[in-house]
Amino acid sequence: MQTAAGVKGTTTGLIDLFKKIAGDTYVFADEESLNNYAHDETENLHFLPDIVIKPRTAEEISQIMMICNEHKIPVTPRGAGTGLSGGALPHLGGVLLSMERMNSIIEIDERNLQVTTEPGVITEVLQNAVKEKGLFYPPDPSSRGSCFIGGNIAENSGGPKAVKYGVVKDYVLNLQIVLPTGEIMWTGANVLKNSTGYNLTQLIVGSEGTLAIVTKIVLKLLPHPKYDLLMLVPFNSLENAGAAVSAIFRAGFTPSAMELVEINALKIVSRFVDSAVVPVTDDMEAHLIIEVDGNHMDTLMSEMEAIAELLVQYDCGDAFFADDAQQKAELWKLRRRVAEAVKIDGYTIEEDTVVPRAELPALIRGVKALGKEYDFDVVCYGHAGDGNLHIRIRKPGSIYSLNNPDVIPALQALFKLVKSLGGTISGEHGIGLIQKPYMDIVFDKAGLQLMSGIKKVFDPNNILNSGKIFDIA
Amino acid sequence: MQTAAGVKGTTTGLIDLFKKIAGDTYVFADEESLNNYAHDETENLHFLPDIVIKPRTAEEISQIMMICNEHKIPVTPRGAGTGLSGGALPHLGGVLLSMERMNSIIEIDERNLQVTTEPGVITEVLQNAVKEKGLFYPPDPSSRGSCFIGGNIAENSGGPKAVKYGVVKDYVLNLQIVLPTGEIMWTGANVLKNSTGYNLTQLIVGSEGTLAIVTKIVLKLLPHPKYDLLMLVPFNSLENAGAAVSAIFRAGFTPSAMELVEINALKIVSRFVDSAVVPVTDDMEAHLIIEVDGNHMDTLMSEMEAIAELLVQYDCGDAFFADDAQQKAELWKLRRRVAEAVKIDGYTIEEDTVVPRAELPALIRGVKALGKEYDFDVVCYGHAGDGNLHIRIRKPGSIYSLNNPDVIPALQALFKLVKSLGGTISGEHGIGLIQKPYMDIVFDKAGLQLMSGIKKVFDPNNILNSGKIFDIA
Repeated sequence: MQTAAGVKGTTTGLIDLFKKIAGDTYVFADEESLNNYAHDETENLHFLPDIVIKPRTAEEISQIMMICNEHKIPVTPRGAGTGLSGGALPHLGGVLLSMERMNSIIEIDERNLQVTTEPGVITEVLQNAVKEKGLFYPPDPSSRGSCFIGGNIAENSGGPKAVKYGVVKDYVLNLQIVLPTGEIMWTGANVLKNSTGYNLTQLIVGSEGTLAIVTKIVLKLLPHPKYDLLMLVPFNSLENAGAAVSAIFRAGFTPSAMELVEINALKIVSRFVDSAVVPVTDDMEAHLIIEVDGNHMDTLMSEMEAIAELLVQYDCGDAFFADDAQQKAELWKLRRRVAEAVKIDGYTIEEDTVVPRAELPALIRGVKALGKEYDFDVVCYGHAGDGNLHIRIRKPGSIYSLNNPDVIPALQALFKLVKSLGGTISGEHGIGLIQKPYMDIVFDKAGLQLMSGIKKVFDPNNILNSGKIFDIA
Repeated sequence: MQTAAGVKGTTTGLIDLFKKIAGDTYVFADEESLNNYAHDETENLHFLPDIVIKPRTAEEISQIMMICNEHKIPVTPRGAGTGLSGGALPHLGGVLLSMERMNSIIEIDERNLQVTTEPGVITEVLQNAVKEKGLFYPPDPSSRGSCFIGGNIAENSGGPKAVKYGVVKDYVLNLQIVLPTGEIMWTGANVLKNSTGYNLTQLIVGSEGTLAIVTKIVLKLLPHPKYDLLMLVPFNSLENAGAAVSAIFRAGFTPSAMELVEINALKIVSRFVDSAVVPVTDDMEAHLIIEVDGNHMDTLMSEMEAIAELLVQYDCGDAFFADDAQQKAELWKLRRRVAEAVKIDGYTIEEDTVVPRAELPALIRGVKALGKEYDFDVVCYGHAGDGNLHIRIRKPGSIYSLNNPDVIPALQALFKLVKSLGGTISGEHGIGLIQKPYMDIVFDKAGLQLMSGIKKVFDPNNILNSGKIFDIA
């Protein structure tokens, strides 16, 4: 494979060509620009591209890809750089393709409850634009204020509302993509059900930019629910909180959010966010944030009351109900900023494990035991309703690095535990670079070979975001 | 490729081997057995296999596949034979692999709201088994009383409830598959969200048995809704009915069923089903069947009333409300038997078009115009809430055949119309053999080449259900 030197070695020719395609002012090779695109939100990773290109259209990307494919130049597509698995990092140098200029919402189709958008639109901008028409795009990663919808598709993102409304894959109807070989094509049709050929759309969602570059996106929308109610419930033990989560769904309720925050995480984030509304007491090991939404306030009130009654059987403390929009916003701000807060507090290694919902207590128990065994501090929080637990690890002096001998055995043990519970490595962050070494714990050889084979079909010269998720077999 | 003669030519050796693997009594080569597996519910197709094998385990299938792969013998997997696109027909001869003995529900996991099942379980049997535990598996094709859950996965089936609850793909969490080369593997994990590698699970769903043989299935379940309400609403024009469908969703309602039946179809099926409950009057061009479901009867009543009020704007006649379980069952029986009735009435060519919901009136208008242009009788019905319109065509003397010059130009025009409306060929029946010639209308060359490439990755010798969906490029 051609790396950094490949682009540099032919600077005059190739860079001039790229400038001709994307415009002089959208091709960068200065140090500052390269540094801006050398990192994402994953701890401790820094890889310089050789060149940054900011194309505006699928046609420009097609021409760029044809050149890179001919010269076997590595290409890394990048959204907003908020990723947590290193998926958008140019670890092989080459061309960094930033999607930031492809930021138009093309059409909000109110007749069909669909939106067609470019990938560089910020998720929250898209959500607000459709909300103005009474419509709802539910997936809401914590980074929604800065992440791009294209990045969400690359990672198959989730967020708190996934428990009722599903993840990104459940909203993607059709994608315009550019293949590594330059062809521009659509993966499907703008329809709610489709049995026409292989599901190429869902093959692209979650493929972390390794198969194709997404240039247009058709998303399903819902009517926006009129009301929601929110409460915070403390539990004296993590296990009781986990058991309560499973009980709520078994009883027939489907909350629109069901988040778990361990007391340590809540204490840390309370230092960063001014949260007069939330009482934090040390004897409560965990809190659940529970939201219900819908169009009938009476129904919501009776559902929330029934949920609160059910929780009493799990030895919870007094529930705190958010009274108004401001209290709701404060509570959500607290939850959304947990990751950032615990990271600042030294919990730099983040995992994104997911298990069947009822196995959450077993996972939490196991994680705590692993912390003792491997001498790590551990803090847990996440989307409990989905069984998606974010596990943050802190060990003084140890930071995330792909070859860190402090980290590898503990993570191997963690992922083996997750697999034994019917779960897997990542629920919504993707594998990228940092979880790649553990893929053989959850997939056997046949599965990894199929993925390699599919990669080769899309990208015969292995130029597009290569070395992410898995290495070609 | 080795065809019929391939198996016959080595009868003694290979058939003995197959008998050793699956048991003497589960390998058939007699004429009656072969004839039983030579057809499905698609009109006018008949292809004899050379041998029928009824394996019991993934391990037996693995051994059978290794032999067939070595000898390049065509293999056609088959569920209950209720398919409508010829997908389970052994058009190349060879081995017919019937999944009928793999008919155990392995575990209903009430803690996690999941079921693990073998593929040969009848869909309705599975639905009833989970309902006994208060759980709900929504996808319900008309053939649910006889089709297999494995076949539903092959075709990504839908049914009336898809409009609120989604199709089969939305319930499949994990699959155990046997590859054409014999490896047994799982595609994912038993989790609600998953960003761990390519979505192999969704690549198998809807692949019509061309990539792998599904041997175990993990499905997501929901709590069963407690109540439902059902009404039948007549409209003086098909277009008004279609426009009303779109309006209901735009107004924020999500019915659990939203079916459309044209007056001709209703008149035909009324001759077959004793339906005292349904008044059929000639001046009403179309009827909508609308169901709402949920856990709060008050909410459902007010929703149904609001929907009924909204429909008045679309010039509907008097709504008929099903008063009790018996009336509901009669109404649903009427709807479910439409396909069978119109087929008996000579409408033997069935299409399964799907468009964005609001384009339904344009599709219906277009279909009627094509009927006049190509001199066909046309009758329409289907899952209007999804934009999924079943179109049945009748022309005296013309039946479905892959090379029928009466049929091809009309269907080409139909699928071009569907594509121009943002739709595609099949919403829930699959492509199989009979829609294969039209795939290049909705996919360009790059898309079909990707599918071919993926097929080769899974099935290097092209032995598994080859020549379905597309021909290898």
